[in-house]
Amino acid sequence: MSHHVYKQIELTGSSTTSIQEAIENAVARAAQSVRNMRWLEVVDTRGHIEDGKVAHWQVTIKVGFTLE
Amino acid sequence: MSHHVYKQIELTGSSTTSIQEAIENAVARAAQSVRNMRWLEVVDTRGHIEDGKVAHWQVTIKVGFTLE
Amino acid sequence: MSHHVYKQIELTGSSTTSIQEAIENAVARAAQSVRNMRWLEVVDTRGHIEDGKVAHWQVTIKVGFTLE
Amino acid sequence: MSHHVYKQIELTGSSTTSIQEAIENAVARAAQSVRNMRWLEVVDTRGHIEDGKVAHWQVTIKVGFTLE
Amino acid sequence: MSHHVYKQIELTGSSTTSIQEAIENAVARAAQSVRNMRWLEVVDTRGHIEDGKVAHWQVTIKVGFTLE
Amino acid sequence: MSHHVYKQIELTGSSTTSIQEAIENAVARAAQSVRNMRWLEVVDTRGHIEDGKVAHWQVTIKVGFTLE
Amino acid sequence: MSHHVYKQIELTGSSTTSIQEAIENAVARAAQSVRNMRWLEVVDTRGHIEDGKVAHWQVTIKVGFTLE
Amino acid sequence: MSHHVYKQIELTGSSTTSIQEAIENAVARAAQSVRNMRWLEVVDTRGHIEDGKVAHWQVTIKVGFTLE
Amino acid sequence: MSHHVYKQIELTGSSTTSIQEAIENAVARAAQSVRNMRWLEVVDTRGHIEDGKVAHWQVTIKVGFTLE
Amino acid sequence: MSHHVYKQIELTGSSTTSIQEAIENAVARAAQSVRNMRWLEVVDTRGHIEDGKVAHWQVTIKVGFTLE
Amino acid sequence: MSHHVYKQIELTGSSTTSIQEAIENAVARAAQSVRNMRWLEVVDTRGHIEDGKVAHWQVTIKVGFTLE
Amino acid sequence: MSHHVYKQIELTGSSTTSIQEAIENAVARAAQSVRNMRWLEVVDTRGHIEDGKVAHWQVTIKVGFTLE
Repeated sequence: MSHHVYKQIELTGSSTTSIQEAIENAVARAAQSVRNMRWLEVVDTRGHIEDGKVAHWQVTIKVGFTLE
Repeated sequence: MSHHVYKQIELTGSSTTSIQEAIENAVARAAQSVRNMRWLEVVDTRGHIEDGKVAHWQVTIKVGFTLE
Repeated sequence: MSHHVYKQIELTGSSTTSIQEAIENAVARAAQSVRNMRWLEVVDTRGHIEDGKVAHWQVTIKVGFTLE
Repeated sequence: MSHHVYKQIELTGSSTTSIQEAIENAVARAAQSVRNMRWLEVVDTRGHIEDGKVAHWQVTIKVGFTLE
Repeated sequence: MSHHVYKQIELTGSSTTSIQEAIENAVARAAQSVRNMRWLEVVDTRGHIEDGKVAHWQVTIKVGFTLE
Repeated sequence: MSHHVYKQIELTGSSTTSIQEAIENAVARAAQSVRNMRWLEVVDTRGHIEDGKVAHWQVTIKVGFTLE
Repeated sequence: MSHHVYKQIELTGSSTTSIQEAIENAVARAAQSVRNMRWLEVVDTRGHIEDGKVAHWQVTIKVGFTLE
Repeated sequence: MSHHVYKQIELTGSSTTSIQEAIENAVARAAQSVRNMRWLEVVDTRGHIEDGKVAHWQVTIKVGFTLE
Repeated sequence: MSHHVYKQIELTGSSTTSIQEAIENAVARAAQSVRNMRWLEVVDTRGHIEDGKVAHWQVTIKVGFTLE
Repeated sequence: MSHHVYKQIELTGSSTTSIQEAIENAVARAAQSVRNMRWLEVVDTRGHIEDGKVAHWQVTIKVGFTLE
Repeated sequence: MSHHVYKQIELTGSSTTSIQEAIENAVARAAQSVRNMRWLEVVDTRGHIEDGKVAHWQVTIKVGFTLE
Repeated sequence: MSHHVYKQIELTGSSTTSIQEAIENAVARAAQSVRNMRWLEVVDTRGHIEDGKVAHWQVTIKVGFTLE
């Protein structure tokens, strides 16, 4: 593992269901164009409120992947 | 949206069930007295431990709402 | 000045024109209900982008005022 | 304790005598209008200097209280 | 409560299922050797990604316990 | 809005005229290659000094845009 | 001093009297089991409020000691 | 440029007109006694409020200059 | 007050007696060479431990003064 | 220099030899696809430990380059 | 790897030679009593100055190890 | 040591060779005008990149010295 170089990108995923699904949605979307993703780190957890309830969650993450 | 002024308040909600429910409880309580809530941001996630288990979760959030 | 107690509140003002006007709009709105405001501190400067341009600025400030 | 919702407010107290009294003055002033205060956290400790000496202390705290 | 001294330790728990279970696993493991745990605070939330999905969650917490 | 995934990039714009124009220059440059920019956040404000005056401003921002 | 290795631990002391005594209580308790303590750093200063007054102070410190 | 050593100092400038002028006033004042200033970085932006309006701006900057 | 420029310097004072005296010692020493000191802000509070007790306190402050 | 716009990316380089080589490896890898790199800033320094020794270093940097 | 629980401890190593050796000395000392160390993260890099030169380096790290 | 007052200054040293030499260069330059330097703390590590390689390192440090 010691010779790799990794790049990190910052994404925000959203979900009407849960904080965790918002993260998983961001990872799933990134998987369409980024290969070799290795880890994520949660940067910020937010929610959009409508009619006094959390309508959807928005979670910002950093995702690290290997540069081939 | 550009002419609005928003105010943020800081709340701590709790739940015996989940981190997410602690947030939703804080929003539900705020909805009793604050109208036009628009977003929340998680500031701090804590838990109270009893007998070696998480007895309840305490999550501190900032809530933003429109000043009418 | 040494016997006063101050309270700080957090506000977000907006403006289509400038960062500075967004702050002044927040102060002007607060002046409708808060007396004895003494200082402000900029916490966060953001902008909303439409069609590749900054459509309006959103600046979050803390405002301190004397509790009478 | 698990079903409560708490609100935090930010206050600055002052004292010509000590850092600790500045905090206690802020709490005493808040007690006039806020019930059920539960905890405080020191955010910032400052002093005003006159003639080369600390003339009064100014300590900013967060105070948490139960929303009834 | 006022005469106690507490110690905090930092742990990282993991789970293939959820962020919350990763925390609970860390608390459960600590309970084997630490008595009188009182609270936890989430420090960092990460995930390990395999094949474009979150394979397991890794959550770092601080745990506070009473020194007897 | 709840199903979108956003990406954030970090840019530094410059201007000999004003802090605000430095931000607008960065957004204008990004608009040449990035569609669907939604918001910006100021990260850092710097200036280059020549002959005892601010010769140009350099402002670092994060820009968020929708991943299509 | 250049060949030593130090370890830091995090403690929270409390006192009904003063912020400083809360720190000294934590150091005194640690002295029962840790030798060669060298320095402390204040991490967090809190207070527990009862009946509108500070009932006791809780101060979190890091304590560094030489590993023999 | 690689053999220079720089020193940074922290200044607060003020202006009744604008945030930017407060910075430029601090740089102009420093230019009276410091040569070879190279860059500045904004640390903190504050305002003094009188009669519900921003009476003057106070901006704290770090200024770096070459040690000759 | 709006036309002044202030400079901040960082000092560490010490005292065998109290945190507050360490700050006052730093201010008193600075008063020997700096005129027009206006405010201080506590940056860091540390203590040196000998024989299981706090032997002296070391408090780092920023001090702001008017540039004449 | 005043009309340029820069972009920053975040990379993690690794080396079995030294912290500095881990940074240089990340820059060398980025040079394969990014032109006009201008500066780097160290964000995080970590190491992987095997058999009680640092097996390789992992250093995360931000790299800024001119957008042509 | 997903079922492990890790503990982090904070150490300060020193060296008269280099920053890197100070880290390696802390790891070597920890290896005498801690098994299964997995990673380290640099928290703080300091130096002790004597006669206008760096006499020794002091680097504080967090070390993570598997709880068996 | 308990009666001393220390002052901290912030310097940036550079080197074409190594991070550590950049620090040592800053300390050596400061030794020409500052006596009784006692410690340094690394604040920021940067590098200037030319032709895809690190051309020189720039390290910002705080240096503390005794006020006589």
